[in-house]
Amino acid sequence: MELFKAFTVFEARREIARRMILPRRTKTIPLTEALGFRASGGIKAPGDVPGFHRSTMDGYAVRARDTFGASEGMPAYLDLAGEVLMGQNVAGQVQTGQAWRIPTGGMLPAGCDAVVMVEHTEELDARTIGVTRPVAPGEHIVRRGEDIADGELIIPAGQLIRPQELGVLAAAGITMVEVEEPLRVAIISTGDEVVDPAATLAPGQVRDINSYTLYGLVRRAGSVPALAGIVGDDQVKLKEAMERELSRSDLILLSGGSSVGARDVSARVIESLGPPGILFHGISIKPGKPSIGAVVEGKPVFGLPGHPVSAMVVFALLVEPLVSNGRYALGGEEFLLEFPVTARITRNLASAAGREDFVRVALRQSGGELLADPVLGKSGLIATMSRASGLARIPSEAEGVEAGELVRVKLI
Amino acid sequence: MELFKAFTVFEARREIARRMILPRRTKTIPLTEALGFRASGGIKAPGDVPGFHRSTMDGYAVRARDTFGASEGMPAYLDLAGEVLMGQNVAGQVQTGQAWRIPTGGMLPAGCDAVVMVEHTEELDARTIGVTRPVAPGEHIVRRGEDIADGELIIPAGQLIRPQELGVLAAAGITMVEVEEPLRVAIISTGDEVVDPAATLAPGQVRDINSYTLYGLVRRAGSVPALAGIVGDDQVKLKEAMERELSRSDLILLSGGSSVGARDVSARVIESLGPPGILFHGISIKPGKPSIGAVVEGKPVFGLPGHPVSAMVVFALLVEPLVSNGRYALGGEEFLLEFPVTARITRNLASAAGREDFVRVALRQSGGELLADPVLGKSGLIATMSRASGLARIPSEAEGVEAGELVRVKLI
Repeated sequence: MELFKAFTVFEARREIARRMILPRRTKTIPLTEALGFRASGGIKAPGDVPGFHRSTMDGYAVRARDTFGASEGMPAYLDLAGEVLMGQNVAGQVQTGQAWRIPTGGMLPAGCDAVVMVEHTEELDARTIGVTRPVAPGEHIVRRGEDIADGELIIPAGQLIRPQELGVLAAAGITMVEVEEPLRVAIISTGDEVVDPAATLAPGQVRDINSYTLYGLVRRAGSVPALAGIVGDDQVKLKEAMERELSRSDLILLSGGSSVGARDVSARVIESLGPPGILFHGISIKPGKPSIGAVVEGKPVFGLPGHPVSAMVVFALLVEPLVSNGRYALGGEEFLLEFPVTARITRNLASAAGREDFVRVALRQSGGELLADPVLGKSGLIATMSRASGLARIPSEAEGVEAGELVRVKLI
Repeated sequence: MELFKAFTVFEARREIARRMILPRRTKTIPLTEALGFRASGGIKAPGDVPGFHRSTMDGYAVRARDTFGASEGMPAYLDLAGEVLMGQNVAGQVQTGQAWRIPTGGMLPAGCDAVVMVEHTEELDARTIGVTRPVAPGEHIVRRGEDIADGELIIPAGQLIRPQELGVLAAAGITMVEVEEPLRVAIISTGDEVVDPAATLAPGQVRDINSYTLYGLVRRAGSVPALAGIVGDDQVKLKEAMERELSRSDLILLSGGSSVGARDVSARVIESLGPPGILFHGISIKPGKPSIGAVVEGKPVFGLPGHPVSAMVVFALLVEPLVSNGRYALGGEEFLLEFPVTARITRNLASAAGREDFVRVALRQSGGELLADPVLGKSGLIATMSRASGLARIPSEAEGVEAGELVRVKLI
């Protein structure tokens, strides 16, 4: 295994991305179920939204040119032709010099091209209004198709469907959506000492933590986790389990094996499953260095460290982008978006140059600023993750950070 | 309605918080289903994690004092008493001068209090090792209970269960969790012009957008939305619908009514439902000013603006904290955490002092920084929300921001 040099996060991503072939399965579901899925293809609008010029004010629909030159001292007098009712249209064409009373959201009568706010009018009698300020064509209206134009691409292929995309689809009258099926992710814990959380512990045994943190991380990222059980440090049994999961999953997460012996078992089994096999063994990060990345039959296989904090950090960097987006941000051009929060670190932290460090932090607000208090503790301690609300990144070129410096944080 | 002065966001929150009585219902569910719920009570650890001193290195378990003074030139010689196997314990008590071979994660034999890394030892023969560097008591081990101590509060009441909390609970052997039932939120759209997205539009009609954006927002915040339909601007029918939803929901969202007439209908109906009724009518924000906040029978009732962007902004400020946390951050002490991202705005934007502005922005990375490009457009245009990835806040004391200034952003 010493043949593998430690990769940076981006080198590791590139290696996986070059070799993996993620499946493309789609299904068509009702709009109300589409939240959190990705659109499988681009979706175009089947018509204009709104379907008519719409008032954005309570006032009078007019032909703008009938108001030109109007002022407080010299109002433009218009004939009050009637009232627009919500959700209804007015028959016929508006004549020069006519105005229609219109509520916010009402449909402009044909021939009108602007709305005068009620504040800039005076009703002289039941049939006449005075306009005291001119309006320009298009003023106080939403034009037909101004929100969404007929044929416009409203949802690009692969777009995550958020609440606002539900709104866009509803606006366009699209009530069934073709989405990508989420990836199926198998989670295997390894280790002779690891037992199910429900089991009674014998001396020397510990409960399986990583299966549950990874289960939660995969689900939160919008994919479908499957707990594939705990396998002892046994090459034959691990190979059996891996082959079974490869046949029914899109991506495999193996965790555990902190000892050199156990790591060798994992590596040998992954290597035995088929080409291209292991692509890297070791990433230049802390915690999380002893990680394995592989591709087997086009499917990404990750050997995550046994320490729960390390496994969560490696998941955040190498697995989460895949299971939530189906792809990596490769060039670093989107990397800041993965660590979007800036906060002031409250302690000096040392870090070796040439290695990216990820520090558990608890965020709090003080004096109009966000502060990041490092949560110290060994990477084997899951409770430290529960006390943290973010992961702060110390870039590889830095040799640590000083108290008061700004760091970039990913919320966890 | 002119009796109500426009409240700030915090004044509005305080008014609602003072009068509302949110229900407390709980249920007990398996660990794998608990992600995203809140723990209904504090949870204490039923035992130490780990349950024994555990090695964090491959090496030799020793009594630290047997290594004191050891050096490369003068190793401490120890008897190799045997090997610790993963998940098993060693019977008996270690004697002075003994060492046990131990893998990472192995259980220290009784009497050992430290581990010497294999790199700092030499195996002289099958029965003797030389230790070339001293270790301190506790070195390279996780002590019994160091992760979680017996009786420790591991999950505070109300804590959101994230992946790391699943891990903590698994570590402690807790496989069933009592959680708070999510709030049931009824969503009613109003407006004579609003029709179901599946309907064929007549002239003057528009499709219901807000029901779907609000549905998505409520679900994403972890609560249970119910689409309660579209009601025309009719006081009797709206009152019927509100009373029906009050009897089966914990919180009601009413949207629509942008015209003065429609707003008056909503306000009169809400006021007629019972005390304390409307608490504010108007918030000093843009967009979203014409919002109503009320409490009826202890249940929060929000009259959101009809414009889709405005409704989403008001939801983010006044509804989301309630439906996701069951409470507001009141004093402003956690407000930065609601807008945790900092980015540089790329355009000058004007804003009136005394009013908070919320600007749709698209975030992108450039030159090692996050930039926020304002997405311009009327607040009636849902497509602008789909082009945005965040809401930037311009505080009420500012009279706008200049291109290049840092703004705080909430991801949307």
